[in-house]
Formats: sequence, C-alpha cells, structure tokens
Amino acid sequence: MQITAKSEIINVGTELLLGDILNTNHQYLSKRLAELGIAVYYQSSVGDNPARLEALLKQALERSNLIIITGGLGPTVDDLTKQTAAQALGFKLVRNAECEQRIRSRFEAMGWEMSANNLLQADIPEGALILPNEHGTAPGCVMQKEGKSLILLPGPPKELKPMFEAAVVPFLLKSFETGIIHSVGLKIFGVGESKVDDLLAGFFRLQNPTVAPYAKDGEVLVRISARAASQNEAEALINPILMQIREILGDNIYGEDVAGLEEALVLALKAKGKSLAAAESCTGGLLAKRITDISGASEVFPLGVVSYSAEQKVKLLGVSRKIIDAYGVYSHQTARVMAERVRDLAGTDLGIGITGIAGPCGGTEELPAGTVFIAVASKTGTVSKLINRTGYEREQVRNYAVNYAIKLALTTLKEV
Amino acid sequence: MQITAKSEIINVGTELLLGDILNTNHQYLSKRLAELGIAVYYQSSVGDNPARLEALLKQALERSNLIIITGGLGPTVDDLTKQTAAQALGFKLVRNAECEQRIRSRFEAMGWEMSANNLLQADIPEGALILPNEHGTAPGCVMQKEGKSLILLPGPPKELKPMFEAAVVPFLLKSFETGIIHSVGLKIFGVGESKVDDLLAGFFRLQNPTVAPYAKDGEVLVRISARAASQNEAEALINPILMQIREILGDNIYGEDVAGLEEALVLALKAKGKSLAAAESCTGGLLAKRITDISGASEVFPLGVVSYSAEQKVKLLGVSRKIIDAYGVYSHQTARVMAERVRDLAGTDLGIGITGIAGPCGGTEELPAGTVFIAVASKTGTVSKLINRTGYEREQVRNYAVNYAIKLALTTLKEV
Repeated sequence: MQITAKSEIINVGTELLLGDILNTNHQYLSKRLAELGIAVYYQSSVGDNPARLEALLKQALERSNLIIITGGLGPTVDDLTKQTAAQALGFKLVRNAECEQRIRSRFEAMGWEMSANNLLQADIPEGALILPNEHGTAPGCVMQKEGKSLILLPGPPKELKPMFEAAVVPFLLKSFETGIIHSVGLKIFGVGESKVDDLLAGFFRLQNPTVAPYAKDGEVLVRISARAASQNEAEALINPILMQIREILGDNIYGEDVAGLEEALVLALKAKGKSLAAAESCTGGLLAKRITDISGASEVFPLGVVSYSAEQKVKLLGVSRKIIDAYGVYSHQTARVMAERVRDLAGTDLGIGITGIAGPCGGTEELPAGTVFIAVASKTGTVSKLINRTGYEREQVRNYAVNYAIKLALTTLKEV
Repeated sequence: MQITAKSEIINVGTELLLGDILNTNHQYLSKRLAELGIAVYYQSSVGDNPARLEALLKQALERSNLIIITGGLGPTVDDLTKQTAAQALGFKLVRNAECEQRIRSRFEAMGWEMSANNLLQADIPEGALILPNEHGTAPGCVMQKEGKSLILLPGPPKELKPMFEAAVVPFLLKSFETGIIHSVGLKIFGVGESKVDDLLAGFFRLQNPTVAPYAKDGEVLVRISARAASQNEAEALINPILMQIREILGDNIYGEDVAGLEEALVLALKAKGKSLAAAESCTGGLLAKRITDISGASEVFPLGVVSYSAEQKVKLLGVSRKIIDAYGVYSHQTARVMAERVRDLAGTDLGIGITGIAGPCGGTEELPAGTVFIAVASKTGTVSKLINRTGYEREQVRNYAVNYAIKLALTTLKEV
C-alpha cells in the first residue's frame, strides 16, 4: 500500500556551512518533490562531521518517513555519510561486486589511477537498493526500515540530477502517494512588480491553484500552479484563473511558458519570417548575446554591432558627426540613426539602436548613469524611448535596457 | 567578556521548501560568518509554519548560542517569525514609535497606500536591539537572553545584506570572539580541473591555510584561505604556500583576486595602453558583453561585430567569398580573416575572431557541435586555435570559447 510521504532533505558538506558553494541541490530536490506532490517539511545542512550528522539523522527519523541525504559519498576521508547513515539504521556495509566492477571500468576508461579509497565507494549497506551513478564513481542507495526510507545521493549536481530522475523518481512513484503539480508561467514586461501585486492581489490568497509573482530587472513572472491527481484535473483548476489574469494584464503578457523575452522575440520573428539587426553601445553585446542564447537565432539575427566608441558610431554605422555634435552621443537622435543604419547595413526588417550610460562612471547631472535611449526602426518608421534607471547597478541597468528593447521590438513586430 | 560563538542559520519560507527560490541568504551568511571567524554548525529551512519553526527554535536554543533567522518578517498573515521567536524567548511585542514613523514616511515617500498590517512591522520584542531596514519596511532585531543571541533578519537579499553589514557585523564584533579569514584567489585557465587536482593534491590536506579548487567552463579558481587573529598573521600563513603554487602553475595563472578573465584583460589592456576589437559568430556577442561588463571598458574596446550569418561576414567584415567557399565558414582561415579585418576596421592593436558551432543544432560529422575556431591578430601576426567541446551544452561551449579567446588575447598582449 502506498503511504503519504513526510519528507525532509539533509545536505552534507562543510563547504555549505562555509558559504563556499550555493546549495542548488536543495532547490532542485524541493522543486522535483513538489512536482511529484510530496511535501517537504524541513531542509538542513550539516558539515562533514559524523556526530552532528548522526544527531540530525536521529531527529529526522523521528519526524519524517522519507529522508533524502546528499553529499559525503566521495572517496576521501571526509566522506562519511554512508557509514554514519548505515550505522544509524543498523545496516552493515558489504562490498558489492557489481559496483566494484563499475568503478574499476570507469577508472580504466578514463585512464586514471585507482586508489584503495575509491573501492570504499563499492561498499553498500546490506539489502539496500542500489542507485547506479552514470556520471561518477559513487553509487547512491535507498535503505528501508520500519516504514522509513532513507535515500543517499552524491553531492555533485551533475551526478545527483540524472540519478534522481532515473532511479529515485520510479522508487518514489512506487512507494509513496504521489500526484502532480502542473503550472503555467505568464511572462510580463511593462508593468512594475508593485502594480502587478495590486492588480492580482486577490489571486495571491488562493490555495489551489496558487498564484505567485517573481520579479527581476523589470520582468515579472506570474506562476499559476495546481496540485491534482492528473494533468487534466490540474488544467481544469488553472484555466478559469488564467483567463481572468490574461484579461487583467492584456498586452503586458509577452509570453506563456517561454524562457524569457529573447525566446519570445526569436519565436515571433520566426513565426512572421522577419529578421532583426542591432547596434548597441552601453549594453555592449548583451542584447546580441541574449538573442543568440536561443539555438537557431542565426535564421533571424544576421548582424549585431557593438559600437562602444563615438568614433565607431560615425565610422562603421555612419551616424553623422553633426548629429552627435548637435544632440550628443546619448540622445534619441543617435539611438534612432543607429537603429536605422544597422537595419540598412544588414538588410533586415527591424533594427534596434541602444545608447546610454550603464554606469557607475560616465554620468553627468543632465544625463545621470542609468539613462538609456532605445530605438526600433522598421518599414513603418522609427520609435525611440528614454529609460531612466538611476540608482541601479551597472548590470541591472544593462539587463533592464535589453529587456525594454526586446519588448519594444516585439510590439513593433505586430505592425510589420 | 567575549564568548565563542556556536552559530546556526534558520531560513523561514514555504517558497524554499517548494524549490521556488534558491536560498542565497544561506550562502551569504555562511560566508560572512566564516570571514568573521564565527563557526556555523547547522543551517535549516522551514516553511511558514509556527509549530515547526517553534520546534526548530527550541532545538537551536539547546545546541547553539547564536541563531540567525531570516524571512517571515513581512506584513502578510503568513509572516509569523517575529511572533514565534518572541514567544519562544518570552519577549512581549510592543509598538515602537520610531519604527512606526519610519514605515509611515516610507509609504508616503513612495506614494503607496498603507494598510493596518504594515504597522504590525513596527511591533518589536520589548528590550530587543532594533536593526533599521534602509531598503524595506520590516526592521530586524536582536533578542538576547541567558547567553543566547537570536537575530531576526528580513528575507529579501537586498534588505538582508545591507542590514547585516551595517548593524549585525558591529553587534557580532562586540559580542563574540571573532578573528579574520584572509584569502587569495588564483585564477587559472589552460589546465583542466583534474590536472590542477593532480598538481596540487598535496596542498588540499592543509588545515590552515586551506587550499581548495573550484572549476567552471575550463576556468579553475584555487583559493588559499587562512584564519588568524590579524591580516598580517594570515598573510604570513598564506605567502609560503602561494609562492609554491605560483611556481607549479606558472603562466597558467592569469590573475590574482580578479573577478574573471575579462577583468584581467581590461586591466592588462589599460596597463599597456592597448586596444581590442572583436568579430564574433557563434559566441554571438558574449565576448563583447563580458568585456563591457567591466566598467570603463570603453577606453580599450571600441568595436564588436556579431556577424551571425556568412553574408555579413562577407559584407561587413570583408571576409572574401573565396575563403568561405574554399575553407568553409567554420575554419582557421575564416577566424583569422575575421580577427584581422575587425582589427583594421576599428584601428585597434588586437583583433579577435571567433567562428564555430555552439550547438545543439548545426553540427556535421566532420565539424560536430562544440567545434570553434579562435584567432587573435596583432602587429606580430595572427594565431588561430581549434577548440573542441563536443558533448557540452550550448552555454558551456560559448563560455569556454570566450574564456579561451580572452586567454589567447592575454598571451598575445605580452608580445605587443
């Protein structure tokens, strides 16, 4: 019979308590367990210290019936998770011939020398379910006793994740009551986080589905998530809410379940068979970089120019010296000519021009750091906008300017 | 009298246990406490659940004398950290006039409407030390009782970090035995992680200073850290080890305590009064973006061209059609001409050319995804290299190619 899981996560490693690494395993496991409908009540980190780990484990066994431990399965003297956990549950460690063979083969294939320590990784709690490691030498395992399941996983994410997906998920589906969590992510740009909070306040109190906003660099993600027994049931819970929120936010929603503005732009350009070129100054290639993060962007984005100096704006882009002298290198006029000239140069449907001051240096009283001019040129003409992110850090100014430019291009794209 | 801290961190928030957000506060606090010489023995996350938080707190008060709790200080009904903690320690909450005034002013300044809930944030445990919040409405506080210190901090990192630096650090220095941790970071490119592991294996067992490697996209950071009473003592511990490691790794060390290759390159260009331009294909602006991440890069980097299509390589960069037809768009020859032409176009001392296949699409049997040609042109001639990162993800291929190109430019820079 399947039982309801009360789960917790324990991450082992002194490096976590020294702040040397970010604990991404915690987030990954929490997210995946939530998606499987398994509740996580606690997460703890502890150093490579058997006494403290043992105390934590004893407590975990009292309050939870599913305990996932990561880290400390390596070959060094510090790696004591397996020994400590086996002892706490009364399991004996025995050398496993198959694991030993696997480790030996791996070392041979890599041409590495094997030490005796490495073979300690082939010692497995007797009777435990072995979780093979396709990306490293330390196997994981599941120990079960008196209704409690204790799962040991290696610390490196590139070993842990494939092991979780391939071996732990099937074990959980078989052993515990699971459901699904289905969610839809609405991507918003053009209304600030506090405005979104105001507009959607009533939805944030819902229990199932839940509605939650996450904001970054002017973008807001509104995630609507439902727990249910099946995908269909979850969708039935989500759809009415989704329709109401779509109504409220309208055109400010630039995409659903897209990775970001750049993906929405590349998809929209492809769908319409249109192309884009960009001339960037203060964003220094960030716009080009973000667009070309999307595989296949070459079809729609033939050219980017990073004209970081005024001279290059004159020389390569043909922005006339007169315009720069009359209006300044940071101006609507310069941004517009940059957009128009790069569009001409590349022969694309759209051209983007960005010029401004990312900071922290280079600002003046009239044009403080954080001032950026953004223009988009198309056959219907050129639009330009001034954004002002005074007081923000260089990286934030650059990210926001690129987000703004992409949104402006998406809007323009509807008309061409 | 100052006492030795036994500290732990508790992060409160259901979003942490659902995997909705990454727990960066844990790393930040761990790192800062380590730097202050304060040992962290445990870290735990718990949801917005008063009963579970109370149980955790009770346990923490038994085993630690310094407990830092983050999150759950907001104005909503879920935010119960302050109430729960005050109750656990037997403190009464009382409305604080100064905090109330601060909250009212903040809402006025922002032009927001204030709800009654917001004023709950001005309720402070009686007798607690108040930690003002310069970036939000929820103040933090320190409760002290029977040799135990309990510190409450807001969850948002942009509120927590300034509060920690401005108010918590002085409290810790005054109340606990602290020391310093001084460290030096050696940045390495050109030898793989496993080779660095082999070369430095003997050092990794040291206790003070410690030596630890961290690897990413072909770069390795070797951090040498010492705990001591003073900076001088720490340096005396570090220096002999530093000299030995410098000897072993030689030219593969491209910088000490620099943020990354791009910072080392901009600093080296400035120091020598030289300039650089870049023509990128598969890296799509990532090189330009990374260089211009460094404030003041405009002095040394006037021009970047992202020629994502073969046509643009011919048209704008003047790579001859013959070369592309004879050798292919992905070839040493094309990379070399891109480097030389962009150097000519911009009139810079160095030119970088990058062409290849970032993947996952676009590869062939001869030239699989992950194949990239990188060239650097200078007055001493042009060098080109082929790198092969087959089997890596698009982002990893792009990062590695940019790292490699910058390292090649740094090497070339020594000769011009």
